[in-house]
Amino acid sequence: MPHITLNNSEPGIRGLLLFRPETARPLSELTDVLLRGPSTLTRGERELIAAYVSGLNDCQYCAGSHSACAAAQLPGGMAVVEQVRADAASAPVPAKLKALLRIAAAVQRSGLAVTGDEVAAARAEGATDLEIHDTVLIAALFCMFNRYVDGLGTVAPDDPARYAAGAQRLITQGYLPPSSG
Amino acid sequence: MPHITLNNSEPGIRGLLLFRPETARPLSELTDVLLRGPSTLTRGERELIAAYVSGLNDCQYCAGSHSACAAAQLPGGMAVVEQVRADAASAPVPAKLKALLRIAAAVQRSGLAVTGDEVAAARAEGATDLEIHDTVLIAALFCMFNRYVDGLGTVAPDDPARYAAGAQRLITQGYLPPSSG
Repeated sequence: MPHITLNNSEPGIRGLLLFRPETARPLSELTDVLLRGPSTLTRGERELIAAYVSGLNDCQYCAGSHSACAAAQLPGGMAVVEQVRADAASAPVPAKLKALLRIAAAVQRSGLAVTGDEVAAARAEGATDLEIHDTVLIAALFCMFNRYVDGLGTVAPDDPARYAAGAQRLITQGYLPPSSG
Repeated sequence: MPHITLNNSEPGIRGLLLFRPETARPLSELTDVLLRGPSTLTRGERELIAAYVSGLNDCQYCAGSHSACAAAQLPGGMAVVEQVRADAASAPVPAKLKALLRIAAAVQRSGLAVTGDEVAAARAEGATDLEIHDTVLIAALFCMFNRYVDGLGTVAPDDPARYAAGAQRLITQGYLPPSSG
């Protein structure tokens, strides 16, 4: 049961966005720009970074939701997502993405944990400054969402089918609330 | 020196907001709503939560900036801010604020670290559901900003006068970029 009375029964971030529309709007816009806006990183790659960081933070709701979004948009599907979450270093993803995931894992620990060597390694694999920037911000964004969702004790469904259905809605409609669309 | 080429010499978050205007807009709106929008928590109290969490994350830029904003808007000024950052449990702040700071410290570690007892203690001191919500989200927001600012290796000035001057600008003009105003 959530720590506060949300006046709705939606799980995870959905219940929080309904509770506080004033903060929901910029949160949704930020997520949509970062995960779905124009980028040289694919939507699947960006969702994978979100899922990976959420898993490192043990956030069941966000990890479930963004793993489903990544799986539906990445070559290799859920098998690759699960390999990344279990051991990113040995997962079958391109070298540039692997180097960006290493930066994301550092960000999850602390911004101060990101080293110049990790950034140089990503650049050596072809990552641009904007891709490095967006990787750091996506990782940081999910360090926020994971804390927001679990810090208020929101409910996380167990059924993977719930996350898969939510992912289809996010993939077709995006993160903006209907009123902003 | 920052890990990426920002094409500007602004320190901390300022350089990042100029680098990526698409994400700067919702980030600025979210910060303005949470730290300056209508609330039963004063602006000084909300800045204190931001400064406290930023200090726990060892983010020199954000801790310096929001400590200055809190000091300028709280009874007791910088002396109280420094006491909170050194030892919140013994600092001379009202019991409700102290209970909210305890929740913020838990969020800094992990969303899963927030306990029902901590939430109940805040409620017993008069905290509302919305105040508890906003405390968790402010703490989570600064876990994002701290990682964003330090994960990209941005520059943090040493001179406290720089932070005090920046605080005066934020207090009078807010967090929205001039073009949004």
